[in-house]
Amino acid sequence: MRILCANVGSTSFKYQIIDMETTTSLVKGGVERIGNSPSAFTHAVPGKPSREGEIDAPTHTAAIAHAMDLITDTEVGCFEDLSQLDGVGFKTILARGYWRSARITEDVIDALETSTPLAPMHNPAYIASIRAFQELLPTTPLVAVFETWFHQTIPDYAAEFGVPRFWVEKHDIRRYGYHGASHRYISERVPQLLGQETAEGLRIISCHLGGSSSLCAIKDGESIDTSMGTSTQYGMIQSTRCGELDAFAVLYMIDTEGFSTDEIRRQLIEDSGLKGISGTSGDMRDVEAAIEAGNDDARLALDTYVYGVKKYIGAYIAALGGVDVIAFAGGIGEKSPITRAKICEGLEWCGIHLNAVKNAQLTGEVDLSADDSRAKILVVATNEELIVSRETARVLKECG
Amino acid sequence: MRILCANVGSTSFKYQIIDMETTTSLVKGGVERIGNSPSAFTHAVPGKPSREGEIDAPTHTAAIAHAMDLITDTEVGCFEDLSQLDGVGFKTILARGYWRSARITEDVIDALETSTPLAPMHNPAYIASIRAFQELLPTTPLVAVFETWFHQTIPDYAAEFGVPRFWVEKHDIRRYGYHGASHRYISERVPQLLGQETAEGLRIISCHLGGSSSLCAIKDGESIDTSMGTSTQYGMIQSTRCGELDAFAVLYMIDTEGFSTDEIRRQLIEDSGLKGISGTSGDMRDVEAAIEAGNDDARLALDTYVYGVKKYIGAYIAALGGVDVIAFAGGIGEKSPITRAKICEGLEWCGIHLNAVKNAQLTGEVDLSADDSRAKILVVATNEELIVSRETARVLKECG
Repeated sequence: MRILCANVGSTSFKYQIIDMETTTSLVKGGVERIGNSPSAFTHAVPGKPSREGEIDAPTHTAAIAHAMDLITDTEVGCFEDLSQLDGVGFKTILARGYWRSARITEDVIDALETSTPLAPMHNPAYIASIRAFQELLPTTPLVAVFETWFHQTIPDYAAEFGVPRFWVEKHDIRRYGYHGASHRYISERVPQLLGQETAEGLRIISCHLGGSSSLCAIKDGESIDTSMGTSTQYGMIQSTRCGELDAFAVLYMIDTEGFSTDEIRRQLIEDSGLKGISGTSGDMRDVEAAIEAGNDDARLALDTYVYGVKKYIGAYIAALGGVDVIAFAGGIGEKSPITRAKICEGLEWCGIHLNAVKNAQLTGEVDLSADDSRAKILVVATNEELIVSRETARVLKECG
Repeated sequence: MRILCANVGSTSFKYQIIDMETTTSLVKGGVERIGNSPSAFTHAVPGKPSREGEIDAPTHTAAIAHAMDLITDTEVGCFEDLSQLDGVGFKTILARGYWRSARITEDVIDALETSTPLAPMHNPAYIASIRAFQELLPTTPLVAVFETWFHQTIPDYAAEFGVPRFWVEKHDIRRYGYHGASHRYISERVPQLLGQETAEGLRIISCHLGGSSSLCAIKDGESIDTSMGTSTQYGMIQSTRCGELDAFAVLYMIDTEGFSTDEIRRQLIEDSGLKGISGTSGDMRDVEAAIEAGNDDARLALDTYVYGVKKYIGAYIAALGGVDVIAFAGGIGEKSPITRAKICEGLEWCGIHLNAVKNAQLTGEVDLSADDSRAKILVVATNEELIVSRETARVLKECG
């Protein structure tokens, strides 16, 4: 089975085709800045010349059509024609009622639409991309693998927000959790890295720190808590998004500034997080550079971010009744030694020790813990596409 | 100096007069169900017959006038006339710009009014009570001791929410923190109970668990983090109030149900928390009784509450870089052994052990930790009135 995994952002489309028999990637590519000409693209098939450049991609449909052309290109493609593709799996965010994964039907698209106010950056882009694939590949089955999937094991008391009952009964207002593909991959990868057969007995704190960030407490391979909430805005501060925030402060801003709910959403998605605090950028690399240059607001952005992760780790140690592995993944988790070092400061009392030299020097999937640490501190190269394509293949098999 | 400490709720007025030389209480009393006739009152002066019963108190002014009559009553009072009172201290919640304490002026009352959307239950009642005292005791100085006081030492990165900069610069949107009088008392009482001269070097996690609940991380006697936010709604779930809540879920409810911000506030204050989840009551004693009777929703309410406290304790262990004392105070903290026991489950990995027998049997200010526990687990009888009256006396002295 060959599955295309579609990872869609509000102005981006990233794709990978994975051969499920070998779990190897046949092609990786993507288009950025969709709708903001010129859009940049990359496309790479192992063993063939790769392509990158600029195109005019005013819509997700145009970006996807361009990618399909490259996939079947005689020089740089991996397929003769698109019928060789057995299915497309979408790393979808949220569709109320479809918490795990589902063959895409009009009902699923309706549910994506209904849930748009809770995933305003992602759902419209996913709907547009699904429509494009329906048009370009009318006979290829499409599957949605929702980011809420992995968190369906969270116990009721950890998902509760303490809101009035009808908010829950009529609107399902609770912590859904996201980044499910990544946390699930980490839950499987950590036992492999430790040379263990299963995740049984393992307590993992999974830190997916990147463009968006969330933590997950994993016990025996199952999510028991996670930092994102009803929306992907909740929990940790993110690149340009707020994190957990006093809801009464939002009501106060609506009342005093007269902002619409759409405008509040926009501000909390685009002007907040690392970017909001630092006043410079939502990219941790820029924030680190600004700190080097003596920017105090950037220092505050990093400190706030790090402090948030540290508190979640402490909270999840209590929730898990201990911890065996702290796993760092994502662009920041894998590539920012300073962030990792600051996060681990203060965990020594619990017997958790980072090896400062290894942390500064090693790259890749490495063990950064000191010899006497009670918990391993690992870096994991997460692979969301593998989870999405595997789950897509499973659903297609199940649906026949 | 004799200071009356006024503790005002939306439908209640509680008072205590403290002689600052001896720090003894000359009278304790209160009126409940103000505005909902008949209102219940109590009044007790040590060594004199106490009074309790029902009155007609349609307003805070009426309740306060009744209390002043009892205070100067020849049979049950403690003063011949009210001129013996040197000042009144109000345990006020929030007035933007007045974060610590202040002699009450029209500016302070204006600031209380401005901040009402963030403290909608308390500020109107405090304003009404202040006006009543101004009328009844026109020459007695009045002081506001704000609940945000103790948290002014929280570092910037712990107070940040990651919102757009103008939310902070124009509107001061950050974690203010509350229950300052109680956490401050606990910060002073714990070293006393340990027989230590100062709080220097002590890491305390203060758990004020009662009608409203918050936790505070205290280092060297100073607050470095606390669970309440811009409003008192944030953090732990409370009796009838939500706790931390995804702001995007609130925006979703506004959009889908068409609720006004006032209506949302009302629901999150009156219909949420323990009451919202259990569907029975916001009182932990009722919740515990309902669990005994097999009520699953009540079980969920207790579990959610306990899990929230446990996570904050873990987070604050990480924030403090360890913990020396976990202090329980408030109606639940002092009197619910089952809640304390469930909170401490899972902290054993960090070396924190509750003595189950002591926890079940001892009452009062006791040490509940097992002999081998790395952190003491203490019960503290908090005394907010002492802090408010002492701070009031200090301000009056300072203002001359």
